[in-house]
Amino acid sequence: MERREFIKGLGVAAVTAGVLAFEAPAVWAKGEKVMWRMVTSWTPGMPILQTGAERFAKRVAQLTEGRLTIQVFAGGELVPPMGVFDAVSQGTVQCGHSAAYYWAGKSIAAQWFTTIPFGLNAQGINAWFYNGNGLKLWEEVYAPFNLVPRPAGNTGVQMGGWFNKEIKTIDDFKGLKMRMPGLGGKVIAKAGAAVTLLPAGEIYTSLEKGVLDATEWVGPCHDMRMGFQKVAKFYYAPGWHEPGSALELIINKKAYEELSSDLKAAVDAAAAELNITMLSEFEKENAAALAQLKKEGKVQFRTFSKEILTKLKALSDEVIKEQIEKDPIAQKVHKDFTEFKNLLNPWAAISEKEYYEGI
Amino acid sequence: MERREFIKGLGVAAVTAGVLAFEAPAVWAKGEKVMWRMVTSWTPGMPILQTGAERFAKRVAQLTEGRLTIQVFAGGELVPPMGVFDAVSQGTVQCGHSAAYYWAGKSIAAQWFTTIPFGLNAQGINAWFYNGNGLKLWEEVYAPFNLVPRPAGNTGVQMGGWFNKEIKTIDDFKGLKMRMPGLGGKVIAKAGAAVTLLPAGEIYTSLEKGVLDATEWVGPCHDMRMGFQKVAKFYYAPGWHEPGSALELIINKKAYEELSSDLKAAVDAAAAELNITMLSEFEKENAAALAQLKKEGKVQFRTFSKEILTKLKALSDEVIKEQIEKDPIAQKVHKDFTEFKNLLNPWAAISEKEYYEGI
Repeated sequence: MERREFIKGLGVAAVTAGVLAFEAPAVWAKGEKVMWRMVTSWTPGMPILQTGAERFAKRVAQLTEGRLTIQVFAGGELVPPMGVFDAVSQGTVQCGHSAAYYWAGKSIAAQWFTTIPFGLNAQGINAWFYNGNGLKLWEEVYAPFNLVPRPAGNTGVQMGGWFNKEIKTIDDFKGLKMRMPGLGGKVIAKAGAAVTLLPAGEIYTSLEKGVLDATEWVGPCHDMRMGFQKVAKFYYAPGWHEPGSALELIINKKAYEELSSDLKAAVDAAAAELNITMLSEFEKENAAALAQLKKEGKVQFRTFSKEILTKLKALSDEVIKEQIEKDPIAQKVHKDFTEFKNLLNPWAAISEKEYYEGI
Repeated sequence: MERREFIKGLGVAAVTAGVLAFEAPAVWAKGEKVMWRMVTSWTPGMPILQTGAERFAKRVAQLTEGRLTIQVFAGGELVPPMGVFDAVSQGTVQCGHSAAYYWAGKSIAAQWFTTIPFGLNAQGINAWFYNGNGLKLWEEVYAPFNLVPRPAGNTGVQMGGWFNKEIKTIDDFKGLKMRMPGLGGKVIAKAGAAVTLLPAGEIYTSLEKGVLDATEWVGPCHDMRMGFQKVAKFYYAPGWHEPGSALELIINKKAYEELSSDLKAAVDAAAAELNITMLSEFEKENAAALAQLKKEGKVQFRTFSKEILTKLKALSDEVIKEQIEKDPIAQKVHKDFTEFKNLLNPWAAISEKEYYEGI
């Protein structure tokens, strides 16, 4: 039930009972229950992502003692996985859990709030969100759609994908039939790949039958569940196209604004908590899945050479230039994102980079 | 006022007013206000750390609409900076913000919950806390002290310190008069350094007068505030001894257990939120301070060579071995910590490490 309907219903009941003669005390208003529905872009029970959205809803209920309850629907249960943005924007549901780059068709700039090729990793993009202009810009980009965004999870660095042909030079992308959506797909298309956007359910069989030579997905944990290790020879790192994909909580603006300040705080704090715990879970589960894949010993691990990465970076710059030329808002977001990255990088070079060189 | 006193006070007032004839409804109990005091190990107004503790308290008040308010006292305002553990353990105050490694004298194992030389970085230790056994072990170690711990911030990778002599080989530590507390100090003592533990207020003058050759502190943001750039020539990276120091929220166990489940959730969620926002602030502010130092152009930046780091790592292993030999609990914690690091590292090597190599 929507909040307004609830209030309306309560009003009728209250009038019927003739109890509107006194002013409701503050505690009465506090006791009022708000019931929200959340839709996600994930499959039912999908580890880390769908379970994370459900953990968020549970935390909000705990924080508010059930004054704000959120019923979570996986992709397809109420609206299609790619219908999350519209459903929340139009107020069909009050909130959603998804990834901003799915909405490039609504706003080119949205992509920067998930990840861009050779963009920021999780630690970097969170600093941009919380202590740079990242979240402010995201709010600005989403405002015309009646949406309030919050960072709510991160996949960490993704993998570069599964290949049935070795990629020894940039020329090995020529004619490569690869499934790769988004900006990454545009980049390898520039390198000569035949990019396809097969639905998730068709990738496995297509790899098996040779209709596809390669695909990217997420990281070891989710990739293993797709079974790609059974139908692909080589597993490439790193995910240059997704160096730390942020997940989003999106809230219908009117629904958010109708919340009392404590309920708003509950939503915001639970989103921030999900942001850190989801990344931690990705790190742990990807590490465990990688160990399992190595133990099974069937997959050959490869890393893109520096030379290939340098060339992919140059092509990425071209793709991004084309994107921002189309859209002044994306241009503004990219400028701020790039300035922040340029501020962080010299620090990262003597801190985290040094740490990882020592592992 | 403590909760019990409040209830007692309320009882008297209620009896006086003769309103105890009916059973108080659930909402009445909910309206009851809990007032806590927090002590910290930070100086008043200390950026990121003290301001972070204050932001936490503000968030808890928002989440609970003032049903749980936390008055924050900086180090020395109520108890000394190093008196936080005892004050919370004994229930003098209900909670504190500090760093577990300060309490090595209470429990050797406590050090692992902040950082150890060549230990985990922020992303790694958070995965250990939230998705490994880290937080469970921490709770176990703190239980005998009537303390409930929560991860509540991280400094990120620290700096290696300020030096007035170049460190070109491990032998350059011989006779070096350096201020360095904790395990890091024990490690460089093994390398021949004359380790001192001067109070913070005496470091600057000691460096200036040559009483000290070197000191470590935190990272660019806090180091600059100490003015070390004016009295030291070389600024070394990385902080091998503190690759990601976790900060702690500690709560008196009885005070925590007396909270209703929604207030407990408010404390836990706000701590997790502080955990990610504090790290983000450290990243941003350290990057900005580093840029400022470079602009001023007075400091010479250096990085410890691979050879030196390898030797410091070997000495760190010796120090840790000596520590855990003294204490079976520390041994158990170190074993779990090390297993988790060994699980994470192969994944880190093809994900975050690759990311940082490309920056």
